[in-house]
Amino acid sequence: MKNLKIALIQMDVVKDKNENLKNARKLIDRASNQGAELVVLPEIFNGPYNMKLFKDYSEGYPGPSTTMLANAAKENGITLVGGSITERDRDKLYNTSYIFGPDGNLLGKHRKVHLFDVDIKGKITFKESDVFTPGDDITVIDTVFGRIGVCICYDIRFPELARLMAMRGAEVIIVPAAFNTTTGPAHWHTTTRQRAVDNQVYYGICSPARSKGKGYKSYGHTMIVDPWGEVIAEADIDEEIIFGEVDFKEIHRIRQELPLLNHLRDDIYEIIKK
Amino acid sequence: MKNLKIALIQMDVVKDKNENLKNARKLIDRASNQGAELVVLPEIFNGPYNMKLFKDYSEGYPGPSTTMLANAAKENGITLVGGSITERDRDKLYNTSYIFGPDGNLLGKHRKVHLFDVDIKGKITFKESDVFTPGDDITVIDTVFGRIGVCICYDIRFPELARLMAMRGAEVIIVPAAFNTTTGPAHWHTTTRQRAVDNQVYYGICSPARSKGKGYKSYGHTMIVDPWGEVIAEADIDEEIIFGEVDFKEIHRIRQELPLLNHLRDDIYEIIKK
Repeated sequence: MKNLKIALIQMDVVKDKNENLKNARKLIDRASNQGAELVVLPEIFNGPYNMKLFKDYSEGYPGPSTTMLANAAKENGITLVGGSITERDRDKLYNTSYIFGPDGNLLGKHRKVHLFDVDIKGKITFKESDVFTPGDDITVIDTVFGRIGVCICYDIRFPELARLMAMRGAEVIIVPAAFNTTTGPAHWHTTTRQRAVDNQVYYGICSPARSKGKGYKSYGHTMIVDPWGEVIAEADIDEEIIFGEVDFKEIHRIRQELPLLNHLRDDIYEIIKK
Repeated sequence: MKNLKIALIQMDVVKDKNENLKNARKLIDRASNQGAELVVLPEIFNGPYNMKLFKDYSEGYPGPSTTMLANAAKENGITLVGGSITERDRDKLYNTSYIFGPDGNLLGKHRKVHLFDVDIKGKITFKESDVFTPGDDITVIDTVFGRIGVCICYDIRFPELARLMAMRGAEVIIVPAAFNTTTGPAHWHTTTRQRAVDNQVYYGICSPARSKGKGYKSYGHTMIVDPWGEVIAEADIDEEIIFGEVDFKEIHRIRQELPLLNHLRDDIYEIIKK
């Protein structure tokens, strides 16, 4: 199978929703024009990552953000992991990633399964579960170039979820994410790299650019990691598109040389999906 | 609970078994004299890490190596994770770690569960399963200072095993290990640090010193990692004892601030032991 060109958009998310949608569309077009076949936006790309604002920016499906995404995918003929937005479904809100194919059809969605409820004294306090309802699904999506897994930000901290995606055939795992300036420097690289190494898959993890204003400071450092754990492309903290290639042969070579997935002792332990 | 002083011995393993036993004893005494309460030796500390030699160095229990370990633990009043040796049990060989308490009694043992069968072209080829039989147990041990997990080298590559040890109450995980100069630079730090971060436990990973002669080149870089993923002590490649402190309060603080283990979605997935 030929290499897959991917682009991750470390977008500068501002307060104005329409401006975010316009900017996202412009950047998607640019990524596509530069040859990307799979394009990724960051977590909560249509408004600030702010507990008090999630509801105001929420949308049912289809809504303005998902319509923009569907059109952008179709008009560029790309597969698009639309970062995430706040999904409104009846009286509930979810942190949801919508994934569109090159014909503009919805291929699937992922609702964040693990909500970010942390309280690191004097550093970062956040309680997503006050606003969001968690999803219950492991998300793997069939695309024109193979199967990808999608999870959102804090979901990456749980090796069970990564393993279940890999066991279901995901060879590329995409993570719209907004780590902060405490957990980012501590864990962003190590966690992403080790998930790639453990499961012998590519990872693309996509952050918003770090805001210059008040409020939540995203870590940035959007990156692509190969199945050996090497970072093959990485952004700094400002708005930027990074590009990389998924080499499917490399996945198979590594899985042959270091056959971790064959060496799983499923006679003595197993991760089950309930 | 007060802090626990641990020492990891990056021992220079030579061909002569008696010399290795004498050197191990001398280094254990030295670590104890410097205040260590938990002392760790590397994987296969009584002879070379060489497929053709494992059988020659093998012992039933008790044997010369385990007797030396029991005496060293008792006479120093320490807990001792005796790296590993080749255990002979009837017609089978295992890569086994014996753990002794301060009274010299055997607290438990771990037989390597995942055997190192890899074939990285032009770099490293090894097939432990030609010689060893794998163990089938998750090993957690009650010691005078709490519960520790023990696994051996390649076992660390499987997040399921680490999670099962942590779920069974291990707050310190000890890994006698001999990564090589290909997999070591690629994965030693990332893997150990991420297991510590995922499970919010301390890790002590103990390598032999890098051999100056022919044969298998261990990576070295014996280290202690805290539950935030920070390396708190690290050796270079030569013989050296490294020291560090396990702060049990730190484990509980991190688990409160970033409650990963409470956020596991065991309603939708679970690692089971069969």
